[in-house]
Amino acid sequence: MTTHGTPRPESGQHGSGTNLDPWYDLYADRTAGLSASEVRALFAVASRPEVVSLAGGMPFVSALPPELIAGAFERVIRDRGPQALQYGSGQGVPELREQILEIMALEGIRASVDDVVVTTGSQHALELVTKLFINPGDVVLAEGPSYVTAMVVFNSFQADIQHVPMDEHGLIPQALREHIARLAAEGKNIKFLYTVPTFSNPAGVTLTWERRLEILEICRANDILVLEDNPYGLLYFDSPPPQAMRSVEEDGVIYLGTFSKTLAPGFRVGWALAPHAIREKLILANEAAVLSPSSFSQLMISEYLNTADWKGQINTFRGIYHERRDAMLAALAEYLPQLTWTVPNGGFYIWATMPNHLDSKAMLPRAVKELVAYTPGTAFYADGNGRNNIRLSFCYPTPSFIREGIRRLSTVINGELDLLTTFSQTSPLRTVPLQRGIASPPPNID
Amino acid sequence: MTTHGTPRPESGQHGSGTNLDPWYDLYADRTAGLSASEVRALFAVASRPEVVSLAGGMPFVSALPPELIAGAFERVIRDRGPQALQYGSGQGVPELREQILEIMALEGIRASVDDVVVTTGSQHALELVTKLFINPGDVVLAEGPSYVTAMVVFNSFQADIQHVPMDEHGLIPQALREHIARLAAEGKNIKFLYTVPTFSNPAGVTLTWERRLEILEICRANDILVLEDNPYGLLYFDSPPPQAMRSVEEDGVIYLGTFSKTLAPGFRVGWALAPHAIREKLILANEAAVLSPSSFSQLMISEYLNTADWKGQINTFRGIYHERRDAMLAALAEYLPQLTWTVPNGGFYIWATMPNHLDSKAMLPRAVKELVAYTPGTAFYADGNGRNNIRLSFCYPTPSFIREGIRRLSTVINGELDLLTTFSQTSPLRTVPLQRGIASPPPNID
Repeated sequence: MTTHGTPRPESGQHGSGTNLDPWYDLYADRTAGLSASEVRALFAVASRPEVVSLAGGMPFVSALPPELIAGAFERVIRDRGPQALQYGSGQGVPELREQILEIMALEGIRASVDDVVVTTGSQHALELVTKLFINPGDVVLAEGPSYVTAMVVFNSFQADIQHVPMDEHGLIPQALREHIARLAAEGKNIKFLYTVPTFSNPAGVTLTWERRLEILEICRANDILVLEDNPYGLLYFDSPPPQAMRSVEEDGVIYLGTFSKTLAPGFRVGWALAPHAIREKLILANEAAVLSPSSFSQLMISEYLNTADWKGQINTFRGIYHERRDAMLAALAEYLPQLTWTVPNGGFYIWATMPNHLDSKAMLPRAVKELVAYTPGTAFYADGNGRNNIRLSFCYPTPSFIREGIRRLSTVINGELDLLTTFSQTSPLRTVPLQRGIASPPPNID
Repeated sequence: MTTHGTPRPESGQHGSGTNLDPWYDLYADRTAGLSASEVRALFAVASRPEVVSLAGGMPFVSALPPELIAGAFERVIRDRGPQALQYGSGQGVPELREQILEIMALEGIRASVDDVVVTTGSQHALELVTKLFINPGDVVLAEGPSYVTAMVVFNSFQADIQHVPMDEHGLIPQALREHIARLAAEGKNIKFLYTVPTFSNPAGVTLTWERRLEILEICRANDILVLEDNPYGLLYFDSPPPQAMRSVEEDGVIYLGTFSKTLAPGFRVGWALAPHAIREKLILANEAAVLSPSSFSQLMISEYLNTADWKGQINTFRGIYHERRDAMLAALAEYLPQLTWTVPNGGFYIWATMPNHLDSKAMLPRAVKELVAYTPGTAFYADGNGRNNIRLSFCYPTPSFIREGIRRLSTVINGELDLLTTFSQTSPLRTVPLQRGIASPPPNID
């Protein structure tokens, strides 16, 4: 191939284990957007059992009684074995799609079974929607901060991710309005707004009902699709959250749901509920990508929903995560009063803000040395923001481990602060709450 | 959005059920390449039980004893429940990757467990590799005819699919050489050669050992990756096929394997074995797309491989498909001597060539009316070729249904031929065997 810039060295010179990539010139342009997280290697270390991990988003699947899964399996293999083992429809098993309608009805959504597309986790729905809509350079509006692996997908299709600030009530409508106007003036092509409006990942905040209506109106007026990602909505603590954005707007919202948090992620089953025309393209994209989602996983879940007390099981999960959130809030108040943090009414995460001069990514190796891990705030921004933020997950460790993890974290943070006060006589330490985002664009803390 | 050509009509005017797509202007350019197969609607009709379907590629999973699956499940849920229900590694479960090495060793492949990436069926490996390598307009070389849903993937990333002719010994090296030279002269950017060298889908032919070496050499000399897709290699009938192309070339081949044909497609578990540098990017792409492949499916398969006589089970499948191939060959000889066809030594498919003036796509509705279905040859070409070809699958129906299906097909074909001889006095009927492809480019039969 004379068109490649650099000739490939003779094959055979490059055994596995070298860092040279003889195929470097052959990759697509989009592949440059696929890079390993800077903290990935560290997380491998952080998975050692002696480390309290407040970093991951793993649900506490041990709270799921094995006999419920075993019961579902027995019925699947007895009654529907050949179907479970076979290829299926690219849209998903019809009975499961009917059951998904019942689940979404709990959040106010009325829809047709024809418009549900089962996917390999809602992550794959994110990938498929992005593949359908994003040309290189197209804008995706995303909350600041946003779910990290959604941004990995957007980057992998060369999207221009533009953050819109949020506060403790979620995305700020006025900031959204101004941001859209600015991008339109620049001639940018905005395709969709990506939002986790309920118990957001990572901020833990929930978009109010009034703001949901206002944001839907803004997007409608500007021909911008809303991609509503709702993995945590049923996992509320004190009172149910506002109904889904999809409950008031059918044509302008692609809604994503999943069984990963209310049942188990190991099955890799989620779904998209999409406007009619988009749904047809989603099915085609799903078939191209995987032929059909796993029949076995789908029938397992369908039988589980048929016969187990799945709402009771969600209540169990709610109680567990509620207790863990409370443990984390109490530990933060006791050990880290110099931080500010969000108080989530559901979901998995607390978003904490450290004094302004601390750098959560630089601090992470020291934290792991103290046997505690978290996710640095910069992971949740495409623009370098979040330097003094950390995401703390309360979903997986027990309350006593959470308490111990926060205690260890306080050792690290207090050590950092001691260093700063010893060696710096300049600016006083300030806390920077999430609400700073009201002043858009968000300040760049460098 | 002022940048969209057509303003979106007011939301609310478009309930589900209309054909209008208010989001038409928002799709990515690549989405134009995602179109429903022309015969898709017909196949929905063809799935009625009274139709003998020789169209699909569904393995005969009923030959898999349910107790083998149940045994695997019991061990998974007893010993590894929380792992099976949880997120896993983006590369796949290590034990399963070790077992995949044993399977690939049966076809002569020696590899490191580090270079295996588990995917959601090998279909998803095709999608991920294409995402990593294809810019719009890049050339994918593909056998003519080629696996239809591979071409759907290539099209969905805007590849330029260029067919290279094959004969009963597989892809023709000299044609490949000439085609590459011609494309290079045109300044085209060739990224990879896609091939199913063993018991190809749809042609049913197998690339000889000598040609494997020659094609690897041609691709090496031209910096073209080989994407070796091998779902059927272990399902041989009379004698083992030549070893995999990957067995002789490590650096220039991405090898794809799957459990869909040797175990069951309902788990959606396949894999890619990739050169070291590419493997790292594949894992990142896999994580972006699905976070991790299903832990539950992977552990089920791993336990099955651990404890069941999986080689014996493959022998069982071999015997079943062998008998069905023989039934189809006998029926073809008896009922359709005016056709030519390939004689596969394994896999699922026979590729038949009808007299020159017949059009397999136009004929399909009449076939379905006669209660038999097949896949028209044009589905397997990106360039309109294959008009008088049909793919006949012998994997799913029993021998007596295969015989009856071919008998019904002969009624349809003989009816067509009667019409032709009655109404046409012009050119005599000729058969056009697969070997016509030796004259490249393949003739366009319009």
